[in-house]
Amino acid sequence: MAVPPSTYPRRLLPLFLGLFQGALLLFFALFVTYDEPSAQAEDTSLVANQVYSTFPFFQDIQVMLVVGLGLLLTFLPRYGFSALTHNFLLLSFSMQWALVLQGLLHHFHHGQIHLDLHKLLLSEFAAVTVLISVGAILGRASPCQLLVMATCEIPLYLASEWVIVTCLGVLDVGGTITIHVFSCYFGLGVSKALFRATQQPLHPKETPTTSSDLMSLVGTLILWVFWPSFVAVLCQPGDAQHRAILNTLLAMSASAITTVVASSLLDRDGKLSPGHLQNGSLAGGVAIGVLADTAVPPAAALALGSLSAVLCVLGFRFLTPLLARKLTLHDQCGIHNLHGLPGILGAAASVAAVLVAPTDSSGSRPSQLSPAGGNASAVLEGHWGSRGAGGQALCQAAGLAVAAGASLLAGLLTGSALRLPCLARPPERLCFEDSLYFKIHDQAESPGPDSSAEEGALALKEQV
Amino acid sequence: MAVPPSTYPRRLLPLFLGLFQGALLLFFALFVTYDEPSAQAEDTSLVANQVYSTFPFFQDIQVMLVVGLGLLLTFLPRYGFSALTHNFLLLSFSMQWALVLQGLLHHFHHGQIHLDLHKLLLSEFAAVTVLISVGAILGRASPCQLLVMATCEIPLYLASEWVIVTCLGVLDVGGTITIHVFSCYFGLGVSKALFRATQQPLHPKETPTTSSDLMSLVGTLILWVFWPSFVAVLCQPGDAQHRAILNTLLAMSASAITTVVASSLLDRDGKLSPGHLQNGSLAGGVAIGVLADTAVPPAAALALGSLSAVLCVLGFRFLTPLLARKLTLHDQCGIHNLHGLPGILGAAASVAAVLVAPTDSSGSRPSQLSPAGGNASAVLEGHWGSRGAGGQALCQAAGLAVAAGASLLAGLLTGSALRLPCLARPPERLCFEDSLYFKIHDQAESPGPDSSAEEGALALKEQV
Amino acid sequence: MAVPPSTYPRRLLPLFLGLFQGALLLFFALFVTYDEPSAQAEDTSLVANQVYSTFPFFQDIQVMLVVGLGLLLTFLPRYGFSALTHNFLLLSFSMQWALVLQGLLHHFHHGQIHLDLHKLLLSEFAAVTVLISVGAILGRASPCQLLVMATCEIPLYLASEWVIVTCLGVLDVGGTITIHVFSCYFGLGVSKALFRATQQPLHPKETPTTSSDLMSLVGTLILWVFWPSFVAVLCQPGDAQHRAILNTLLAMSASAITTVVASSLLDRDGKLSPGHLQNGSLAGGVAIGVLADTAVPPAAALALGSLSAVLCVLGFRFLTPLLARKLTLHDQCGIHNLHGLPGILGAAASVAAVLVAPTDSSGSRPSQLSPAGGNASAVLEGHWGSRGAGGQALCQAAGLAVAAGASLLAGLLTGSALRLPCLARPPERLCFEDSLYFKIHDQAESPGPDSSAEEGALALKEQV
Repeated sequence: MAVPPSTYPRRLLPLFLGLFQGALLLFFALFVTYDEPSAQAEDTSLVANQVYSTFPFFQDIQVMLVVGLGLLLTFLPRYGFSALTHNFLLLSFSMQWALVLQGLLHHFHHGQIHLDLHKLLLSEFAAVTVLISVGAILGRASPCQLLVMATCEIPLYLASEWVIVTCLGVLDVGGTITIHVFSCYFGLGVSKALFRATQQPLHPKETPTTSSDLMSLVGTLILWVFWPSFVAVLCQPGDAQHRAILNTLLAMSASAITTVVASSLLDRDGKLSPGHLQNGSLAGGVAIGVLADTAVPPAAALALGSLSAVLCVLGFRFLTPLLARKLTLHDQCGIHNLHGLPGILGAAASVAAVLVAPTDSSGSRPSQLSPAGGNASAVLEGHWGSRGAGGQALCQAAGLAVAAGASLLAGLLTGSALRLPCLARPPERLCFEDSLYFKIHDQAESPGPDSSAEEGALALKEQV
Repeated sequence: MAVPPSTYPRRLLPLFLGLFQGALLLFFALFVTYDEPSAQAEDTSLVANQVYSTFPFFQDIQVMLVVGLGLLLTFLPRYGFSALTHNFLLLSFSMQWALVLQGLLHHFHHGQIHLDLHKLLLSEFAAVTVLISVGAILGRASPCQLLVMATCEIPLYLASEWVIVTCLGVLDVGGTITIHVFSCYFGLGVSKALFRATQQPLHPKETPTTSSDLMSLVGTLILWVFWPSFVAVLCQPGDAQHRAILNTLLAMSASAITTVVASSLLDRDGKLSPGHLQNGSLAGGVAIGVLADTAVPPAAALALGSLSAVLCVLGFRFLTPLLARKLTLHDQCGIHNLHGLPGILGAAASVAAVLVAPTDSSGSRPSQLSPAGGNASAVLEGHWGSRGAGGQALCQAAGLAVAAGASLLAGLLTGSALRLPCLARPPERLCFEDSLYFKIHDQAESPGPDSSAEEGALALKEQV
Repeated sequence: MAVPPSTYPRRLLPLFLGLFQGALLLFFALFVTYDEPSAQAEDTSLVANQVYSTFPFFQDIQVMLVVGLGLLLTFLPRYGFSALTHNFLLLSFSMQWALVLQGLLHHFHHGQIHLDLHKLLLSEFAAVTVLISVGAILGRASPCQLLVMATCEIPLYLASEWVIVTCLGVLDVGGTITIHVFSCYFGLGVSKALFRATQQPLHPKETPTTSSDLMSLVGTLILWVFWPSFVAVLCQPGDAQHRAILNTLLAMSASAITTVVASSLLDRDGKLSPGHLQNGSLAGGVAIGVLADTAVPPAAALALGSLSAVLCVLGFRFLTPLLARKLTLHDQCGIHNLHGLPGILGAAASVAAVLVAPTDSSGSRPSQLSPAGGNASAVLEGHWGSRGAGGQALCQAAGLAVAAGASLLAGLLTGSALRLPCLARPPERLCFEDSLYFKIHDQAESPGPDSSAEEGALALKEQV
């Protein structure tokens, strides 16, 4: 049974993307420019040093998002090509979209937006939220739905980040609250509103195979390796950045070991679950972000890494099934376990750290995610100085509340919008299926190794 | 039917490579040395800074060529091991060969060639041309043929690059004309001369499978991520390099989105073609190279990226079949669509940019591919100053003509040489088949998952 | 036949790891701290520069160990998930363990260990020895056995490294002797003591498939690309580091080509063996390490790369089967061919180089692996100055003898300890099998491509 042409709006995706790219081109032509070339040799050397100090970090993050995260999502055996492509497409789309919005909000001077690597980096951070949120509905949403979601999420993220960082003065150098918690609850909100009360049954194509699990683990390892770059890129150069790298490494190392412990203890036969490994090993990186550049002792990084891995594994084992049963909340990749729980843990730890920390260490915690650029001395004498440790702790907690609450609400609204029939959610039978979106060559043209695979694919196609 | 020993010259490959490595060793022992260690602390710090500013870019490019490009070529399901290995072997071979020739041509002083990282980088750029050209005949040529092709192509590239950059003063920091256009038409020339008028029928092993397409897409993504390093590595540090990175990022981001638009519009069901994605996403990087470090507005980078992606996709859809039918021109990987058409577009854009650009921006366009090393002030007051924008535009066009014309001719000659019977082109039936070159373990030794694969492989072997 | 619960100690692994992580956390809380934030702007910029000069190298090495080495070990078709995970787990475990021991041995001042990136790097180098040694017993040892092995190997490595570098003053910037030779003979010792005189028959799951060989080759290529970072990271900035990068590149390039020559010549049909390629291409990197930063001519690097590749391939073809037959020595990954033989060759070359080199070049050979940190002028006037070239050559040879002899002995003792029944070596039938340690989803839940694979897996499970 082929999908009737009328029900699948096959021209919507190119139309939407084409209009977007055209409008963006127009906007860039009118308003976006580069900085004037620096006339003096001194300035040239300054720009060169900025490139050398930022670009290796930037490339590490690009690898994480394009290759690492993409591969992590390929655990669905018949949906790997879609996962990789949609992740890549959403990154390009969201980055450009965030560049425009951020430019309009923060960098619009005399009718011009001056582009530089730092602004690209900030728009990349905005795009990360979309890539995380997608995890909640992976495989059951059409590319059009994902793009509409990205279109809504980017401005909402920018608003939320402005409230949290600029208004509340929350310290969150690694994006634990602003990125991970926000995107997790946004994604869950979308999922809830999109699927409503329909229990999603286990789809036959949902179960990973050994080889798709292996690819996904490679993605995890790439993310694991480059995570310190993600956390440290926006830190103050010098001690703060150095500490951010070390803290993240320690936290992730502890996560890796604790994940094995927790996953093994939870299984009757002591066997490890691939899903736990793929996610738990990264939980420490999520949790440590908010504290990475502060003067917390190294042991705290280890403890945070271990605890977040335990939370993540327990979440997969108990909370996700519970949420699915009680709230009919569908979370395909378990983003609540990887981003939600460790994010909340990290935020709570930051509250504790602020209360415990000696006052004079505050100088080393500038809020670098602020797009306005951190003025270290302003931060030193600024908010925290006048509001005291208790006030700062309250702000951290308020930031968490805003990130979780506002994003959940925004996600619910966005998810309702995704139910518009024109956005073409794939029918249940065609979920998790590459061949719905790609001309995959599975025809039995060659004798030999793949014949059984091809027959299966053919059989499937004939059913459709 | 086994290949009779007499027809397959099984000792030619080690003989050729062994002699090459031996001769190279002798040459190095006689003529190649390192720079004297710098005596002064100041010089040491200078060398250290050069390492820190170049080496991360260099490593990015190595990842592109060895891992990214290698994986991109694994789309042939039974030829992945060969594609990866031959790519790797050709890179090592061509780099060493280019090092020798470049040393003799440009750096031979007092009977000595002083080796440094910059010269290795230039020889790596030369090797890229070989890796691109191979794409036209991938899977139907023996390793010996590929090595002979590399042996011919490297000196021809160096000559062409010398004419284009040094004589004509063409500005081409990212190698759009000197590398991409050159290697594309060289490869097509080789293909034409090698296969003559024989129409290459669709080989049963030529069709990608889902998993080989996935690996190939991972290769594309790795290339996509690191492409800015490739374009920017030879730029002047400071503003020019900064702009090169940003322009390349914008162009490739636009390419990714536009590829989806174009590929979807061309299909009756709106489905995307894996081949389009694997190539179109990179087209922007090819086209922007020639302009990346100039003061073009960011919108131009976006436009160039979009246009080149459209050209690339249209090329795959219409031009490649047309060339195959009308000219019996075989282009296995579609290098004309990824390197030829976007390269020509980039060159045309550079002509327009030179004509449109204000004169005083010329200072930011040193010709960095010149192995003699760019002297910024010489460039500033040099060719362009005296020849004017019109003259420079003419030179850009002439450079394109030289790159395309000379390489096509050179490729035709080289391809004729590859028809020598001793070079052992594999018989049609054994094309695209790893087991011709590798002791692949496909024997049915283990029960279980791969049994059908193994039987297929065995059956195939018995036929041979 | 299921494994009876009593014979497989399913709670040992989490118990061991949990206790370790807990104890480590306690140790960190009591003794480990960060450096005081630098008060002066000058110091901040110094720290920043140290981060910028070390961190890209550090990340390259992380990619090598976590992704590259992990993938290299996935050549066992049904053991890929285990190989990747165990490699990752052992790295995290060994790094933390080495951090503690190194801190206690070298950096314990006033009851405090000050953590920094350099110390993490040194502990990473210590962890490498474990990852290499594992290769000898891959697939036939339980994770508990591997962890006990790591627990023993790290202190033994630190002791051996202290003797070789600090006491004997051996020059070995790339770890050829201290890391590669040590870990190889340690691993062989463990294998000998663990398996005793039982001939290990060829296991049906031991034979690589095309796709597992391909993944493994990708791992090789990643290692190949980043190897120069591994060798150069601890060099003196400036000329020495520059030379180390170039020498390593040349050696590995020659290795790649020579491996093809040697592998092709050894086969009757001239076909290449995937195993030779996967290992031989890297042999040059092992051998050059000891000499990389010295003033050897570039030709010596090429020669060393070629020779080590030949040794490696010959080792696979003749020595490994011989050792297995005569000494019943089992070497699963052929670590003796990749790390042992090239390591000995490199050490021998360093003896020759010391004897041949002019005296005044000694200044450029500081012993950087010394955790105390190299004081260049001390080295210049130090050991070598007083002991002369002959004395230094003797020391290099003695270092080799210590690394090989002591590690073999230590490995034999460790291997005997691994025979403790409580450590649960998997029964022969379940060797090389992911499903023993992981909840791999191979159930026949989905129709289509993987059905044959799933049936095989199911059949296998029912046998167990």
